[in-house]
Amino acid sequence: MTRLIDSTPRRDGFRMPGESEPHAGTWMLWPERPDNWRDGARPAQQAFVAVASAISQFEPVTVGVNQRQFDHARASLPPQVRVVEISSNDAWVRDTGPTFVVNGRGEIRGVDWRFNAWGGLHGGLYFPWDLDERVAQKVLEIEDADHYAAPLVMEGGAIHVDGEGTLFTTGECLLNPNRNPQLSKADIERLLAEYLAVERFVWLDKGIFQDETNGHIDNICAPVRPGVVALAWTDDRNDPQYEISKDAFERLSAATDARGRRLEVVRIHIPAPVLITAEEAAGVDRTRDTLPRKAGDRLAASYVNYYVCNGGVIVPTFDDPQDRPALNTLAKLYPDRRVVGVPAREILLGGGNIHCITQQQPAK
Amino acid sequence: MTRLIDSTPRRDGFRMPGESEPHAGTWMLWPERPDNWRDGARPAQQAFVAVASAISQFEPVTVGVNQRQFDHARASLPPQVRVVEISSNDAWVRDTGPTFVVNGRGEIRGVDWRFNAWGGLHGGLYFPWDLDERVAQKVLEIEDADHYAAPLVMEGGAIHVDGEGTLFTTGECLLNPNRNPQLSKADIERLLAEYLAVERFVWLDKGIFQDETNGHIDNICAPVRPGVVALAWTDDRNDPQYEISKDAFERLSAATDARGRRLEVVRIHIPAPVLITAEEAAGVDRTRDTLPRKAGDRLAASYVNYYVCNGGVIVPTFDDPQDRPALNTLAKLYPDRRVVGVPAREILLGGGNIHCITQQQPAK
Repeated sequence: MTRLIDSTPRRDGFRMPGESEPHAGTWMLWPERPDNWRDGARPAQQAFVAVASAISQFEPVTVGVNQRQFDHARASLPPQVRVVEISSNDAWVRDTGPTFVVNGRGEIRGVDWRFNAWGGLHGGLYFPWDLDERVAQKVLEIEDADHYAAPLVMEGGAIHVDGEGTLFTTGECLLNPNRNPQLSKADIERLLAEYLAVERFVWLDKGIFQDETNGHIDNICAPVRPGVVALAWTDDRNDPQYEISKDAFERLSAATDARGRRLEVVRIHIPAPVLITAEEAAGVDRTRDTLPRKAGDRLAASYVNYYVCNGGVIVPTFDDPQDRPALNTLAKLYPDRRVVGVPAREILLGGGNIHCITQQQPAK
Repeated sequence: MTRLIDSTPRRDGFRMPGESEPHAGTWMLWPERPDNWRDGARPAQQAFVAVASAISQFEPVTVGVNQRQFDHARASLPPQVRVVEISSNDAWVRDTGPTFVVNGRGEIRGVDWRFNAWGGLHGGLYFPWDLDERVAQKVLEIEDADHYAAPLVMEGGAIHVDGEGTLFTTGECLLNPNRNPQLSKADIERLLAEYLAVERFVWLDKGIFQDETNGHIDNICAPVRPGVVALAWTDDRNDPQYEISKDAFERLSAATDARGRRLEVVRIHIPAPVLITAEEAAGVDRTRDTLPRKAGDRLAASYVNYYVCNGGVIVPTFDDPQDRPALNTLAKLYPDRRVVGVPAREILLGGGNIHCITQQQPAK
């Protein structure tokens, strides 16, 4: 069961922990829709299995799946992964799952944001999103964790926190009129402060170039630990990403966090532009309800879309010369964790990456 | 997760506890199919809510529901009931859920029987039953309990155990050629001995008159505690039930249980025949895949289809003069529990009763 709490986490002494704090486990969803994932989602499923397998070396993993795919998901995933029936429109549990908050007494609760498929009827990525809207509640029912209903449209990938009062986000997403046109920036900060128990907001202008989520923070910038962030970077001044990352670097370098610290900004170079091939585009069913995938379109590839779990860091790789330097940098940034690269092109083709398809449940 | 154990419970030191032993909780499923439950299943849903509410006063209850009905089930059930997505063809978790077994070290596992909708293509009650076949596994995934796959068609309602080595069943069901025509009675006993860790079999000939499950034991006879059983009875010699109950009484009175005890048999009079009304029959959708419900058909009404939970006994009532004597008898039989009657006509109209729609998960 999950009771709706008519209050806010801050008021009740709950806060969102940093992703590096201990987890009880990880939630994922199973990709299946052939109008977003090529070749009947088979290659994506294999990539998801690789991610679930990697994480399950470190902590418990639960994968939610539509009933049609239950047997196939169960047979494809390793036995230590728990598979439960959770219907969804697509597999982005970072954005459709709950954001967990904890208090100092070993209790967890979930924040259930409103969801409109990254833009609703004005730029949303598919229609309908009725099942996605219920994912958070279904996770919380299984875990017997109570929840708050936050009165704003938001996705988990639109925010990152350091666990000590600082929140990172982008104006491109959270101030986009296709999310909460009725709310001002001050309104949004007030709501995030209440529902995540944060007090300092570090706003970047934009996310990764052509990120179809409207520039989710979790693809461009990730807190490594309080006071240190990783930033997706390029040295290529002709790449449209250059100005975006440069602006982000300047904002981050100028910022102080909730504890008054200056931020150390560690740059991680993006791979060479990843373009959808004609074969890949042809493998996606065409329907009127889904964003089309066109050959030649550039995908929002970034190593910063990594996921931190107990003792591990799961990092997307792209068969690119930048893979190795990125893994090396992350190994230095997380000296107490094992850094595991997982080939992620097939996840990227669906519009996101490893961080987007995972959601941590903090330890009690 | 639930791992398939390639062994048997007996071999591994597990046994099926009696229903009166402590529970961790109760599983139920949500009724929805309009070709079995009248008026779009609304009256049945209200009855299921009453049962779940009653049990949830005593122990945790989880209700599995198809995704289409998730919101409605969640809104209809009391907040302390956990609601999870588990697809099913109908709502008989006694028969489609796992049979839990325990060992002496606080571990639980599940037995997953084969299921063919009470008779398969030869007298089964509906087609298909593909989702029902997966219910046990889905329950066990959520609970992280490993399982055994028992190589016989059986339903949980076809057996009762006293927890001390004695199993009660009926030949009408377990020896019916529409279940396991390839197995002899000795084969079936051997399998039940292995999968439930029982050693003594008390076979009744038949169950309640016209019980469409082919005479499930749980509608005619229930172990109250080791050495004592309740038996559905009628004093009306013109009722076809009379000869059935008389034969059962004689068999039970002549039997000894696994500990060598003679059984005390307590008779509980059935209500007056419960017939489907024309209005009730008209409320059921007609399809070629479901047993038709015809006006005037007699239903298999019995108080013995009660459910024992921690501190409680949940008993079906039929707005009949026998309700009160039945509740009084059960109150004497279970002096340490609170006996709660729940009006159950709407459950009975679907083909079973309170015991059929519940499944206990033993405490660890």
